[in-house]
Amino acid sequence: MKKGMTMTQKIIAAHAGLDYVEAGQLVNANLDLVLGNDITSPVAIKEFRKLGIDKVFDKNKIALVPDHFTPNKDIKSAEHCKLVREFAYEMEIVNYFEVGEMGIEHALLPEKGLTIPGDIVIGADSHTCTYGALGAFSTGVGSTDMAVGMATGKAWFKVPEAIKFVLKGKFNKWVSGKDLILHIIGMIGVDGALYKSMEFVGEGVKEISMDGRFTIANMAIEAGAKNGIFPVDEKALEYVKDRTDREWKVFEADENAEYSKVIEIDLSEVKPTVSFPHLPDNTRTIDNVGEVKIDQAVIGSCTNGRIEDLRVTAEILKGKKVKKGVRLIILPGTQSIYLQAIEEGLAKVFIEAGAVLSTPTCGPCLGGYMGILAKGERAISTTNRNFVGRMGHPESEVYLASPAIAAASAIAGKIVSPEEVL
Amino acid sequence: MKKGMTMTQKIIAAHAGLDYVEAGQLVNANLDLVLGNDITSPVAIKEFRKLGIDKVFDKNKIALVPDHFTPNKDIKSAEHCKLVREFAYEMEIVNYFEVGEMGIEHALLPEKGLTIPGDIVIGADSHTCTYGALGAFSTGVGSTDMAVGMATGKAWFKVPEAIKFVLKGKFNKWVSGKDLILHIIGMIGVDGALYKSMEFVGEGVKEISMDGRFTIANMAIEAGAKNGIFPVDEKALEYVKDRTDREWKVFEADENAEYSKVIEIDLSEVKPTVSFPHLPDNTRTIDNVGEVKIDQAVIGSCTNGRIEDLRVTAEILKGKKVKKGVRLIILPGTQSIYLQAIEEGLAKVFIEAGAVLSTPTCGPCLGGYMGILAKGERAISTTNRNFVGRMGHPESEVYLASPAIAAASAIAGKIVSPEEVL
Repeated sequence: MKKGMTMTQKIIAAHAGLDYVEAGQLVNANLDLVLGNDITSPVAIKEFRKLGIDKVFDKNKIALVPDHFTPNKDIKSAEHCKLVREFAYEMEIVNYFEVGEMGIEHALLPEKGLTIPGDIVIGADSHTCTYGALGAFSTGVGSTDMAVGMATGKAWFKVPEAIKFVLKGKFNKWVSGKDLILHIIGMIGVDGALYKSMEFVGEGVKEISMDGRFTIANMAIEAGAKNGIFPVDEKALEYVKDRTDREWKVFEADENAEYSKVIEIDLSEVKPTVSFPHLPDNTRTIDNVGEVKIDQAVIGSCTNGRIEDLRVTAEILKGKKVKKGVRLIILPGTQSIYLQAIEEGLAKVFIEAGAVLSTPTCGPCLGGYMGILAKGERAISTTNRNFVGRMGHPESEVYLASPAIAAASAIAGKIVSPEEVL
Repeated sequence: MKKGMTMTQKIIAAHAGLDYVEAGQLVNANLDLVLGNDITSPVAIKEFRKLGIDKVFDKNKIALVPDHFTPNKDIKSAEHCKLVREFAYEMEIVNYFEVGEMGIEHALLPEKGLTIPGDIVIGADSHTCTYGALGAFSTGVGSTDMAVGMATGKAWFKVPEAIKFVLKGKFNKWVSGKDLILHIIGMIGVDGALYKSMEFVGEGVKEISMDGRFTIANMAIEAGAKNGIFPVDEKALEYVKDRTDREWKVFEADENAEYSKVIEIDLSEVKPTVSFPHLPDNTRTIDNVGEVKIDQAVIGSCTNGRIEDLRVTAEILKGKKVKKGVRLIILPGTQSIYLQAIEEGLAKVFIEAGAVLSTPTCGPCLGGYMGILAKGERAISTTNRNFVGRMGHPESEVYLASPAIAAASAIAGKIVSPEEVL
């Protein structure tokens, strides 16, 4: 007798024209969107050219977002962006986003309605798993897979097994999706979900905002997962409904779906959590951080550059000043979020507090620019990776945390909870 | 019989403890401020260390502004900024400006009241001549001079002769200080005022805003001048009075001062002017520009990143969109200007138009980052230099113009006058 399928398995089956798939099976599935950025697309475009075809499979189903080293950091990045731009014009790619109309890819695509429930999305960027927050199966691939995806609209997948995270309760004040995912990664390790789906279910899901869900799905890859995915509830549909004309499909896991593990988490027991250098799973709760002075705080990225992140940041910064000697760099995820931050008065709070307010860019997250660390410097950051040298010098350090912790730490000059500064 | 003295000569004489100086004379003068940025200060600090002294001459009279490659562009710039920061703390330098509380040096110092009428200011940056707008003698020096200046509070000068620009009339709509200085450089050439003062006098001065005067004085160096200087009138005093507790001194040129040349300019006859590649003196009036398509427009820098520049930009952009395929990058000169742009609704206009709104930085002006050009790309820019490769690839091109022309061009996708898009 056939076993039941997980959410991810159901999406894959539907896109492979199959009634049933099981973990480990290799399938060729249709893609709803193929994504690339200014770092990965140039490589993919070169591979695409080798295929000897002159058209992409569907000019509406490719998204090119130059966001990593843009506005152009240097001549090399300018050349890469030019190559992507020219390809986009040549192929008449509808969803090419020029600097100024864009944002960070994983904040931008859901906002533009380009990723909706039931989709399969591949992107030549490891944090493509973000769209699982909308009940899509989305995952990062290499540039060669992106090239083939642009050419054929299909990709091969090994169907993943899944870990089920059953959530209950609700977050306490100052605790958010970021703390939950850091907590989980700390618990299961950076390879704790290797090539698996992380399915988040249970009564607790409805207590997590969409922005929180994006953060959680975004960091599934930091536990080694193929994807992270949430059920499509009213909040998700509310988010999607005015953003797309396409029809979305809601897939639910079968009751008899098999999971390699089931983990129950009470959201009310999750504490603000910080990942110490140099791995995301090196976590401590805020009460066990000790005295960690910082030189820089970064709030933004595809993980935590959304409006809710900026709101909590402003709530903490309002009427306060960044500690002398500390740089606080705030990067809204998209131009729309930037505009909203201006309209809600958040931008004013940031500048009055002495923060840098940057145009949307991945920038410092991956050591690109806009806040690179010198030898021996320490940053607290809402980004997703704290590997050796990730934000600059090999002897610098990155501590991962939520926007609330990062904002409070910028005021205190050391890693603290918001209660310490309010 | 002694000849009369120019404004600049009078300031130098007073700071050298002399009643009289004449052109060509070498004098040792007291300094009111010594300035460095993140590119030049590290070199100056190393030279300073060689002097074997452990104190700067006056911790209140040094300004260190990391603005060129900040927020840190890369590890090297991070190391440079760290070196400057540590020196500032060690020497207890009062006017060290951390990222987030800063801006572009030549926009920042006048705003903070650190440059006032009658001052002598040296800065290890060629556009230090900006403060001449306030009736100060200010000029760019090398890093070694900066080091000695920090140590002794003095510098050697060869007293410059002067060219007198007698201004009358007033600008027409869309014509500004930028057009005047480009017009002048086009007329006299990039060495037309070599090692001379450019003194701007006459009835027309009062018609030029302070922001316009900063732009004009800023670009004196682009005609090879030692400095540019304006008389201190009511507008200048209005600008200064609430920004400083120091006593300013107003120096006026003697009636019998000698000038190597006197040039009369009717402001009403100045047309919007564009400097074509690759020298600022390669000017054409807007009606003679022809068809010049652009890939990028940059509005900002120490030349044109002030509130008046942003206001005219917003006036033109309001309700319009940047041309598809063109990047418009707007960089407020300081955090205060950024805040004001938010409060006045300008920031909203910029983002709605599809412009990048960046934190204050020199960035693209000198090919630093935040908008570097690829091979064959063209930018119109409100910055001050259009040398070969200045903004990126050696085969890219920069056209210098006012914010009004740059904004209109961003909408049109080619270099045009505002009338063409309004």
